[in-house]
Amino acid sequence: MADQKQPPPTALLALDWGTSSLRGARLDPAGRALEERSFPRGILTVPAGGFAGVFDTCFGDWVRMGAEACLISGMAGSKQGWVEAPYCACPAGFADVAKQLRWVNDAAPSLPTAIVPGLSCEHRCDVPGLASVPDVMRGEEVQILGAMHLGGWRDGLCILPGTHSKWAWIHDGRVTTFRSYMTGEFYALLSQQSLLARTIDTQAPFDADAFALGLRRAGQGGNLLHNAFSARTLSLFGRMDAGPLASYLSGLVIGEELHAQDVHTAARITLIGSQSLTSRYALAFANLGVSTHSMGAEASWAGLHALSHHLPERATAP
Amino acid sequence: MADQKQPPPTALLALDWGTSSLRGARLDPAGRALEERSFPRGILTVPAGGFAGVFDTCFGDWVRMGAEACLISGMAGSKQGWVEAPYCACPAGFADVAKQLRWVNDAAPSLPTAIVPGLSCEHRCDVPGLASVPDVMRGEEVQILGAMHLGGWRDGLCILPGTHSKWAWIHDGRVTTFRSYMTGEFYALLSQQSLLARTIDTQAPFDADAFALGLRRAGQGGNLLHNAFSARTLSLFGRMDAGPLASYLSGLVIGEELHAQDVHTAARITLIGSQSLTSRYALAFANLGVSTHSMGAEASWAGLHALSHHLPERATAP
Repeated sequence: MADQKQPPPTALLALDWGTSSLRGARLDPAGRALEERSFPRGILTVPAGGFAGVFDTCFGDWVRMGAEACLISGMAGSKQGWVEAPYCACPAGFADVAKQLRWVNDAAPSLPTAIVPGLSCEHRCDVPGLASVPDVMRGEEVQILGAMHLGGWRDGLCILPGTHSKWAWIHDGRVTTFRSYMTGEFYALLSQQSLLARTIDTQAPFDADAFALGLRRAGQGGNLLHNAFSARTLSLFGRMDAGPLASYLSGLVIGEELHAQDVHTAARITLIGSQSLTSRYALAFANLGVSTHSMGAEASWAGLHALSHHLPERATAP
Repeated sequence: MADQKQPPPTALLALDWGTSSLRGARLDPAGRALEERSFPRGILTVPAGGFAGVFDTCFGDWVRMGAEACLISGMAGSKQGWVEAPYCACPAGFADVAKQLRWVNDAAPSLPTAIVPGLSCEHRCDVPGLASVPDVMRGEEVQILGAMHLGGWRDGLCILPGTHSKWAWIHDGRVTTFRSYMTGEFYALLSQQSLLARTIDTQAPFDADAFALGLRRAGQGGNLLHNAFSARTLSLFGRMDAGPLASYLSGLVIGEELHAQDVHTAARITLIGSQSLTSRYALAFANLGVSTHSMGAEASWAGLHALSHHLPERATAP
């Protein structure tokens, strides 16, 4: 009978170990998530030498259930992480990233465990003394690879909104270049720590009209240093209440990010992230007459699943 | 004998009562400061109804020495201040501001005391639902009037760097419009509260070379949401140390402010503020091949001195 058959075996433990949170999934051989978990155990909470212990505490039962391998993306591969996995330089696709996977030697003995490197690129600067400026990502590269894998496309623009949003341009299956924007962090600082915090209600429900006003204001230029002050004066003159002001400021900040480039030239735009964030960006693009596709956490698992078919030879591990 | 002659009489008590500090000066009939004081008693530290008490504590001895009048500029005229002095709408010059001086009725009985209104203007927006966005200043208008009075000019651009920098365009002796930039606040938030804070030494001495790199990077576009992240990556890749990074970030932020407009078209640019700030802006303008004039606290006293010749009739006070 169907309900008495063996449960599908776990093929891969997929982990996204970031700065402030740790997420994991058990994936079946087809890459489907059988179970998911998340913990507030980002790398900032883990003392040096403590990664194996946290790994065992959070996922030890999964390890004992048996799996073929474990792949970990995110800040766990940074200098302050478990094992440093140096950045893979752009242009970088599947094979490039897979080549730089790094073995972890103190995870579960029975479970081959590797860390995925982040990506780096250089932005030309042409300033004497500053020929170029580097850019980096860790964790987002797996989501981009997953989006390509799931979507079956090899050219486009991926946008990953967040504390530090990433815009990644993909050509022929490889990330050619990308740019980081501190959009989420600016919004948090402005709405919670700045003078504006006194008159903004960040707990208010999203107000699409106020958000659109912020987007349009940002689209008229000025720049955020100036436009952010309007959140103060609109309140001072009683023209906008504390609730809508939060959405207006969100529109100003996201609008500033969108207007940094010509979004009309990208062939296909994929937004990857939590639904609450991608829906705002989708709305912002729609306001510009640009359509987008959205994708959630499944992108991470798909990327790690696809990479698991390219595990490095254990013999080459340090 | 010269050293036995009467000390010059105090003509005016001039106060600049801001959000976080309270400064005052005794001015002689020619507007020269005989004595100056400052206290950490900005309006945020004064409970409702407590302004007269703080005034007496800080300046009671000056009041008892005798003076013809007292003029107060700054946030003391805001809703949260001593007496609200509604904003004077631009275009506004000497006569417009003087007409809107507001009497304080609970200061020293013997001393006519008035508060100077701030200025407001509207930035056209052309967005349905947001025809225009207001801008405001309080305190800076007195410095601008003082700079005109001292410099003997009636046309130009005044820039007042600070937590919220102001750019004011002056034509025929009146401020026609102005723009606020949250430059100082952005710098403080980024260097002290953001991810960047970990790798930036804000106590390091000013590094003119790193500052110039930041300015030039900002001048190449991008925008601050993106460029600020380079302060992170330059540190991560070991290309800039924590000390220079503070100056680099300062250059990025000030550069963003400068590049918001065409600074080459202004006839005469006057920078008003503390020497430590105006010198950075002067350097930034020099990098663009634009010369500037700088002026310090004397601008406030000169503005209040000149306004004191236009005190409103006491009979019209509420």
